Amino acid sequence: MTQPLALGIDIGGTGTAFGIVDRRGQILEKGEMPTRGHATVQDFIAALKQQLALIIEKVGADNIVGVGVGAPNGNFYTGEIAYAPNLPWEGVIPLAKLVSESLHQKVTLTNDANAAAIGEMMYGAAKGMKDFILVTLGTGVGSGFVANGQMIYGHDGFAGEIGHVIAVREGRRCGCGRNGCLETYASATGIVKSAEEWLNDRTDETILRKEKGRITAKMIHEAGEAGDAFALELFAYTGKILGQTLADAVAITSPQAIIFFGGLAKSGEMLMKHVRTHMEANLLKIYKNKVQLTYSALPDADAAILGASALVW
Amino acid sequence: MTQPLALGIDIGGTGTAFGIVDRRGQILEKGEMPTRGHATVQDFIAALKQQLALIIEKVGADNIVGVGVGAPNGNFYTGEIAYAPNLPWEGVIPLAKLVSESLHQKVTLTNDANAAAIGEMMYGAAKGMKDFILVTLGTGVGSGFVANGQMIYGHDGFAGEIGHVIAVREGRRCGCGRNGCLETYASATGIVKSAEEWLNDRTDETILRKEKGRITAKMIHEAGEAGDAFALELFAYTGKILGQTLADAVAITSPQAIIFFGGLAKSGEMLMKHVRTHMEANLLKIYKNKVQLTYSALPDADAAILGASALVW
Repeated sequence: MTQPLALGIDIGGTGTAFGIVDRRGQILEKGEMPTRGHATVQDFIAALKQQLALIIEKVGADNIVGVGVGAPNGNFYTGEIAYAPNLPWEGVIPLAKLVSESLHQKVTLTNDANAAAIGEMMYGAAKGMKDFILVTLGTGVGSGFVANGQMIYGHDGFAGEIGHVIAVREGRRCGCGRNGCLETYASATGIVKSAEEWLNDRTDETILRKEKGRITAKMIHEAGEAGDAFALELFAYTGKILGQTLADAVAITSPQAIIFFGGLAKSGEMLMKHVRTHMEANLLKIYKNKVQLTYSALPDADAAILGASALVW
Repeated sequence: MTQPLALGIDIGGTGTAFGIVDRRGQILEKGEMPTRGHATVQDFIAALKQQLALIIEKVGADNIVGVGVGAPNGNFYTGEIAYAPNLPWEGVIPLAKLVSESLHQKVTLTNDANAAAIGEMMYGAAKGMKDFILVTLGTGVGSGFVANGQMIYGHDGFAGEIGHVIAVREGRRCGCGRNGCLETYASATGIVKSAEEWLNDRTDETILRKEKGRITAKMIHEAGEAGDAFALELFAYTGKILGQTLADAVAITSPQAIIFFGGLAKSGEMLMKHVRTHMEANLLKIYKNKVQLTYSALPDADAAILGASALVW
C-alpha cells in the first residue's frame, strides 16, 4: 500500500535533522547529521543526500511527493538562505534550487523558526491558536510570528527575526555585525558568552570556574540544577533581557501564547520564571496576565521537521 | 436617490473628527470637535450626537447603515476602550455600546491607528500593499500593523501599540505608568517634553527659549524651518529614537512600507531624514534599503475617518 509522504529537513546552526512524514503528522523515519564540517554548501548537500538515501529507501522513493526545508534566514518566497550569521555558508545561497537538483524533488524552503511554528500550529502546542509567537533558543534566537492563523512572512519573506531585535543598546557584538541583538544574550551561545565574561570580570566562587574557556550551556544548566548561585544569576540575567524584549514584541502582535523551543528552553523554570517576571513587568496594562509562556509540545527537533514537511502539503 | 452611507468617527487625544462616507470612499460631509472638556464620557457622546445630527440631517438619517469608530486603545473584539493614557476617561469604557445606544445604530470600534491603516489600505498610500505599518505621530504614538493583507488585531484585539515599545530603557516617564515608551519621545507631546527638558538643562541660544514652559510641536517645527540649531537637534534626537525602534519592528513584520500620519509627521524631512538614517543603521542586512518610509496620502484626519467608516462595510 502506498501513501503520499513528505520529507522534512531542519537545518540548524549546529545540526541538521530530517524525517519522512505522512499527512497525519506521523514521522515514519528520521535521522540527523552535523551541519558543519563540510567545505562548501554543495558538499553539505551531497552528505545530506547520502543520509537521506538510507531513510528514503525504507519508505520507497516513489512515495515522496515533495521536500520542505527549514533553515536560518531561509526565505519562503525566493528559496534562498541570505546572510545567515549562524550557518557556515556566506552570502546568498539558492538552497531550495540546490536541494531540488540533488534530490530531484520539488523543494519549499522557509525560516527554521517559521517551520517550527507551523509544526506547533498543526501538530503541537499551538494547535487551534490563531495568534502566537514561536521562539527558538538554540545556537541563535529565531522566531516565527503567526497572526490571524497565518505565518507572517513579511513583504520579502524575512519577517520574524526577534533574535535581531536590539535588546541592549550598544551591547555585546552579534554575529550579524551589529551590537546588542537579543540572540547574543538569550541563545545557548549567548548565555555561554555571559558566563565567560563574568568569569573574567568577577571572582565569586562557582563550580563553573574550573571550566573557564570551555563553558557550554549544558554545564550552566547542570550548575543551576545543583544550586550554583553564579549559574542561577546567569539565568536571571538572561531571562530579564529575554522578558523585556518579549514585552515589546507583545505590544506589536498581542499573541495568545509564546512557545519556546530549542536547547536553552530545556532549562525550564530556572530561566522562564525570570522571563515571565520581566515580561509582565514591562507589559502595558492591557496585555498583563494574558500571554501564556509555554514549551514546544513536540519532542526534540520534531516540530521543525513536521513544520518543514507541512510546507509540502 | 438614496445610497448606503457609513458614519466614520475618529476620536483622538485632542480632537474628534467625523464624516459621512459613501462606499467608494467619498467623504460627503465632515466635522470636528474637541475630545476634551466634557465631564464624563456620556457628556462627550451627548455633545458628539449634537454635532453629528447637523451632518446626518444633510444626507438623510435613513441612508446611514452603520457607524465605525477609531479611538486610542479601542478594541475591535469587545467594542471597549481600555486604559487609554491619552484620553480623558479612565478604566474600561464600553464605547461601542454607548455610541450605539445614543445614535441607535450598529457601531464597530477599533484602535484609531488601525482605522487609519485600513483607510490607507483601501483609499490611500497603502493601496495594494499586503504588509505595512502605519504609525501615527500625534498626541501619542499609535500604530496599525497589516500582514498578509490583514489587520493584526492579536489574540485580544489590542495588537499594534508600537508607542508603548520601550525605546529607552529606564527612560522618561510615560502616561501609561511605565518608563521609556516610544511615545514619550516621538509624539508631538514627546518632542515638546524633550524641548522643555533641554531648555532647563542647557544654555545654548534658540528662538524657542522665550517660549519656555509653553512650547508646542508647531513652534519647534517653525523654529526648525527657520534654521534654529536647537530645534533641528530636537528633530535629530527624536528621529534617532524613532528610527531605532522602527528597525526592531521591521525585524518582526518585515513591511514593504512604514506610513506616517499625524501632526509631527508634517515636519517631513526635518524629522524623517534622521528616522531613515537610524532605522537603516539598525537594520539587519537582509532588511536594508527595502522599507519605504512615506506619508499618509489622505488629507488631515481623512484616513482615520475613512478607515473607521470602512469597518461598516
